[in-house]
Amino acid sequence: MISPGELIQLVSPQGKKYLRILEPDKELHTHDGKINMSDIVGLDYGSSVKTHLGRKYTVFLPTLYDLIKNIKRKTQIIYPKDIGYILIRLGIGPGKRVVEAGCGSGGLTLALSYMVGEEGRVYAFDRREEFVKLCEKNLTKVGLNHRVELCVKDIANGFDVEDMDCGFLDVRTPWDYLTPLSKAVKNGSMVGFILPTTNQVSRLLEALEQFSYTDIDVVEIMLRRYKPVYERLRPDDRMVAHTGFLVFARVRIY
Amino acid sequence: MISPGELIQLVSPQGKKYLRILEPDKELHTHDGKINMSDIVGLDYGSSVKTHLGRKYTVFLPTLYDLIKNIKRKTQIIYPKDIGYILIRLGIGPGKRVVEAGCGSGGLTLALSYMVGEEGRVYAFDRREEFVKLCEKNLTKVGLNHRVELCVKDIANGFDVEDMDCGFLDVRTPWDYLTPLSKAVKNGSMVGFILPTTNQVSRLLEALEQFSYTDIDVVEIMLRRYKPVYERLRPDDRMVAHTGFLVFARVRIY
Amino acid sequence: MISPGELIQLVSPQGKKYLRILEPDKELHTHDGKINMSDIVGLDYGSSVKTHLGRKYTVFLPTLYDLIKNIKRKTQIIYPKDIGYILIRLGIGPGKRVVEAGCGSGGLTLALSYMVGEEGRVYAFDRREEFVKLCEKNLTKVGLNHRVELCVKDIANGFDVEDMDCGFLDVRTPWDYLTPLSKAVKNGSMVGFILPTTNQVSRLLEALEQFSYTDIDVVEIMLRRYKPVYERLRPDDRMVAHTGFLVFARVRIY
Amino acid sequence: MISPGELIQLVSPQGKKYLRILEPDKELHTHDGKINMSDIVGLDYGSSVKTHLGRKYTVFLPTLYDLIKNIKRKTQIIYPKDIGYILIRLGIGPGKRVVEAGCGSGGLTLALSYMVGEEGRVYAFDRREEFVKLCEKNLTKVGLNHRVELCVKDIANGFDVEDMDCGFLDVRTPWDYLTPLSKAVKNGSMVGFILPTTNQVSRLLEALEQFSYTDIDVVEIMLRRYKPVYERLRPDDRMVAHTGFLVFARVRIY
Repeated sequence: MISPGELIQLVSPQGKKYLRILEPDKELHTHDGKINMSDIVGLDYGSSVKTHLGRKYTVFLPTLYDLIKNIKRKTQIIYPKDIGYILIRLGIGPGKRVVEAGCGSGGLTLALSYMVGEEGRVYAFDRREEFVKLCEKNLTKVGLNHRVELCVKDIANGFDVEDMDCGFLDVRTPWDYLTPLSKAVKNGSMVGFILPTTNQVSRLLEALEQFSYTDIDVVEIMLRRYKPVYERLRPDDRMVAHTGFLVFARVRIY
Repeated sequence: MISPGELIQLVSPQGKKYLRILEPDKELHTHDGKINMSDIVGLDYGSSVKTHLGRKYTVFLPTLYDLIKNIKRKTQIIYPKDIGYILIRLGIGPGKRVVEAGCGSGGLTLALSYMVGEEGRVYAFDRREEFVKLCEKNLTKVGLNHRVELCVKDIANGFDVEDMDCGFLDVRTPWDYLTPLSKAVKNGSMVGFILPTTNQVSRLLEALEQFSYTDIDVVEIMLRRYKPVYERLRPDDRMVAHTGFLVFARVRIY
Repeated sequence: MISPGELIQLVSPQGKKYLRILEPDKELHTHDGKINMSDIVGLDYGSSVKTHLGRKYTVFLPTLYDLIKNIKRKTQIIYPKDIGYILIRLGIGPGKRVVEAGCGSGGLTLALSYMVGEEGRVYAFDRREEFVKLCEKNLTKVGLNHRVELCVKDIANGFDVEDMDCGFLDVRTPWDYLTPLSKAVKNGSMVGFILPTTNQVSRLLEALEQFSYTDIDVVEIMLRRYKPVYERLRPDDRMVAHTGFLVFARVRIY
Repeated sequence: MISPGELIQLVSPQGKKYLRILEPDKELHTHDGKINMSDIVGLDYGSSVKTHLGRKYTVFLPTLYDLIKNIKRKTQIIYPKDIGYILIRLGIGPGKRVVEAGCGSGGLTLALSYMVGEEGRVYAFDRREEFVKLCEKNLTKVGLNHRVELCVKDIANGFDVEDMDCGFLDVRTPWDYLTPLSKAVKNGSMVGFILPTTNQVSRLLEALEQFSYTDIDVVEIMLRRYKPVYERLRPDDRMVAHTGFLVFARVRIY
């Protein structure tokens, strides 16, 4: 039974999605008419409510995917297709301690904090205060902020954390931070990077070899969506062709 | 400091990887010579050991990616690129309870049990006994078997579980099990499927519409790997072009 | 030296392209100002002209690619990436005789007639008169109409041509026309098809096997464009994900 | 009716292809047994012949695609997917005069000479004598050598041709030849390049801007093949992920 204060996702007949905290005294205004949020209290997930124009909206518990997609953003966020792969490559899971620099709007931060659970910890930095604030807001909305140490920080001066299980950098010049990064994580740890251009990837690869990194991998993840129509199955006409190159490497003791 | 009994990954100078439980009285035989496993005890991750021919191998803590890649398999396993996306779409995380049918060699089972943590639970079925045994063996090796209820079961007769947070089917005719699946998971839950052919996707889409499923999505994830050479950066010559179509849907109350 | 009546392509400083027949008494109105077309007469290709606001436009001889991209269309046209591959698979070249059904706006017809030269011949059909007229207009503009026999025709009643070197169908139900198609082309000829959905491809494959076709191939061509910026080289953010599946087969004598 | 001396393609029941000049006194040895080539004389294309073990092989007229695929090669050849797009971008067609440097084994040379017809001309260079000889042999086999001026030449010393309609370079350092290239082709002409690495593309882009080139485009063509089985339609498991980046540009008068 859905209670006030819960995070819910409403889906319109056309598939449009609304992520909201259930506040019974509020209304949701849609193209299909108004929904009294109080009508949702006490329903089961998977149920429908009607707008004042009689259109049916279905209520669901949002999954991690929905939470990431609904992040309020001022920057390009990292896409779920990339986040899923990052989680697996870095070995994120319950109890892990992760450091992330360049958290931006906090899409990856949200996923990391979701996956590390109550025993884990995420240390998320950005040198731009507005992004740290936005990230905080996004995490608070979904109730994950207590798992994250958010901080305005220029990592050029060090990460000020140590013994992290892994690390991730979403910054423009990651090659400038390879030594502080290697000190922030445990020896032998996996670290990851996302970069938009091939020039940046080349420059990072050169630096990774110079510093004590090994087991280096560069990949791109592409997602192709299909129109879910059984008698006319076909890929969508257009797709996101590029989000970023993912680079992974391990810190070696030399 | 690495102790006996730990799961370690050894990486050769050419990047070949060996996942082993550290048994100090054993040797690892490689193309570069023998390694005394006792030499590894007490080292820090990220350190190197030498083969009897003097070649340096580096020791790392395996990440989830390494564990999945090292699964002993008798079937096509689900790839990390797909698993990562499945985790996010289904909202897998600490404490979740998941049902999986068609666990095969257990690649996805391993990832699910890793992510749900000690508070979560995975119910994994296969109707072929040999796969349940193989899956068990693979989970035991990495110490995750206690989080999984493994069972030889034909789901045509029902799943015998309920209130699951989500479900995943890797079976040839998923359209045959949509009603029992919807009873195994909580109302409104997200379920996922992987299917190799477009004919199967069409048939599943038709069935999902007939039964009480909604919010349907069909995607493909492609991974393109690059040669990590900074002055000659280029995609690999060949890639895996197809593993499977991923289908996601939610159970609606109607 | 460029003369009146020639087909020219003007490219703006931002890369916007205009394909025009050079009529000296006309003006080209652009976002950068007006260009007197008479200023272009007598110039060499590769030269620039200025708009009345002083912006430089460069004049080029259009290539086949430019001609295809500038087709006036009422339907989805076949893309250059697909046309190039079709030409090679069908063995189109000087002197070939080709039949095409479902010519639509005439993008492929234009390319076929360009490639078969003065000795070749294209027989292009569509059952919708408006498209035959549009196709004719598009071919006339680029001076290739005399190489094409255009006809409003429903191929269900036969193609009324024979001994074609190859054939191509861009129609919704190509499986209905396999027998007439095999009579229109020489024995052993290669024929091609373009289809948007997997369901259509499956149905065509089934029919091709039943009729006397062999050496069957199904492919998709994807084109990924890069931002041509040397110090920030990266794929475009978005791309066309799907135009159609290409199917090729040969007519066997049985 | 097939005559001696013709170029034919035999296709096995499993789809294996053999391209041969029909020499009636010869035999073709296959895994399915021997075929007397004299049995093929007088047949129609699309007919079958039997091996001495009774297996049916079908005889076809090879298309341009088959000719390219059967090139004897000592280097990576340019793939049909790329060649088709190159033809369209460069505007190759009957009567065109094209210059190509780095012809290698001659795959593109073959396609160019096929398409320019008897009135056109291809000037193909390579600085390595063995490749010029191989290219010659490959062209002679398919009867196209008389349309091509083949030459061992280091283009650093100039192309020694002028007024070409377009040009293509498949060389390691194309940026070294941009001035001689611009002198070999007509003003305003389209030129193309193929390069395997992103570093080369960046360097070429930088040089194209410095020299008098404009209208620059960088693309990649990917081909995904499907298993042509109507009730189990699916992409092939593996694909060629990378052949080369294609760069196109036009010569501007400045």
